Amino acid sequence: MNKQTYVPIYFQISQEIIQKIKSNEIKSGERIISENEIIKRYKVSNTTARKVLQTIEDQGFAVKIKGKGTFVSDNLSATRSATKVLSFTKNMLQLGIKPGTKLLSCDRIDGPVSTFVNGRNYIINEPVYKIIRLRYANEMPVLKEIRYISSRFCPDISSEKLEGSLYEIYKSNYNLVIESIRQTLTAIIIDDEQLAFFEKTKMIPGFRVDGVTFCGNDLILEIEESVYCGDFYTFSVEATP
Amino acid sequence: MNKQTYVPIYFQISQEIIQKIKSNEIKSGERIISENEIIKRYKVSNTTARKVLQTIEDQGFAVKIKGKGTFVSDNLSATRSATKVLSFTKNMLQLGIKPGTKLLSCDRIDGPVSTFVNGRNYIINEPVYKIIRLRYANEMPVLKEIRYISSRFCPDISSEKLEGSLYEIYKSNYNLVIESIRQTLTAIIIDDEQLAFFEKTKMIPGFRVDGVTFCGNDLILEIEESVYCGDFYTFSVEATP
Repeated sequence: MNKQTYVPIYFQISQEIIQKIKSNEIKSGERIISENEIIKRYKVSNTTARKVLQTIEDQGFAVKIKGKGTFVSDNLSATRSATKVLSFTKNMLQLGIKPGTKLLSCDRIDGPVSTFVNGRNYIINEPVYKIIRLRYANEMPVLKEIRYISSRFCPDISSEKLEGSLYEIYKSNYNLVIESIRQTLTAIIIDDEQLAFFEKTKMIPGFRVDGVTFCGNDLILEIEESVYCGDFYTFSVEATP
Repeated sequence: MNKQTYVPIYFQISQEIIQKIKSNEIKSGERIISENEIIKRYKVSNTTARKVLQTIEDQGFAVKIKGKGTFVSDNLSATRSATKVLSFTKNMLQLGIKPGTKLLSCDRIDGPVSTFVNGRNYIINEPVYKIIRLRYANEMPVLKEIRYISSRFCPDISSEKLEGSLYEIYKSNYNLVIESIRQTLTAIIIDDEQLAFFEKTKMIPGFRVDGVTFCGNDLILEIEESVYCGDFYTFSVEATP
């Protein structure tokens, strides 16, 4: 074996199991393989088997319950891409999570509405539909969004059922194709009245997302101000020089 | 004037001034244009001029000090792109901010070192240089980074002066070109011992960045675990379908 590619066997096995947890092959709350099963399946010593489970625990993917076994931590989580536009609904479905939406309000308000995103100001001048929604992952509220949708592009969106992907409504009802989105992510501490939305009792970290959605060159379809629950969400970055 | 592009004059003026603040043309701590100067320069009423300043204040870009004028808030901030690789040093210089670095430690340690980024595990098997540094923006600590650098690609990086861009050292000393980076951003609350690094007394939001840097197809040059001060940093997203 090439020295440069030598990886301790306990580490290899632990990574294999972690992959299964992350890919949802072993689901949260389920028992993972036991020490004895590891010894049998991988033909390793009990010291190695113990190290496998310890590594998985140390990395936060499982918890040992005395006399019962080792179980996958039930920390439901999702990653949102910073480079690819994907609706909340599709993102959840891809992760095997059940999406849900609760419409809190929908009002037509006068423009201008503006936002400051990535060093530039963006303005919608015409009246907008201000839609506030809570998005759920397996019944757990994880995202509170305020979207200011241009009445010019979506003149009667308030008459729609606003409980799924708005991107889908843009497409099917208004024939609008999302061209790109620009967003600024700010780290925040979610506390006080915001906590109630997320059904939490003590403060948690979160992301504020200020964004703008384009349906054509410089055509602003919507402005967004959202709060993402940091207990649930991470963002994935893929950058090149 | 086309109704759809009508923007109230107070709003237009306020956005113009905010642009100057954000672009650093008017610097933090400097006095911005007064009510009387707005009246003269833009030929508007005093009601309009007052609304201009109020809007700038409301958006958090300036604070009014009684009897003295309105001053740009001294909230130094920076945006990091989620799609383009840019060294800390270059990022700061582009924003007109003085970068600084304090090396906290540099140790050669045995591999494997692993990280979980965007749903995948990445491993450096060979020994690494574990470098811990604090990065400063105008003398203010804003980023604490731990970088695990492959000894295979950078066999004697510990003998370098590690107080500027490591990307520059990779390039000039080892002829290594960064091909891409992958990172997961997690929202965190910075408290307890981490606060001291950032010279803060009460907790602040932040980003934890777990990342991997490639210098070729699947060639892992370094693994990173950093904490970005959320008071200072935001991340910019540009996504397409």
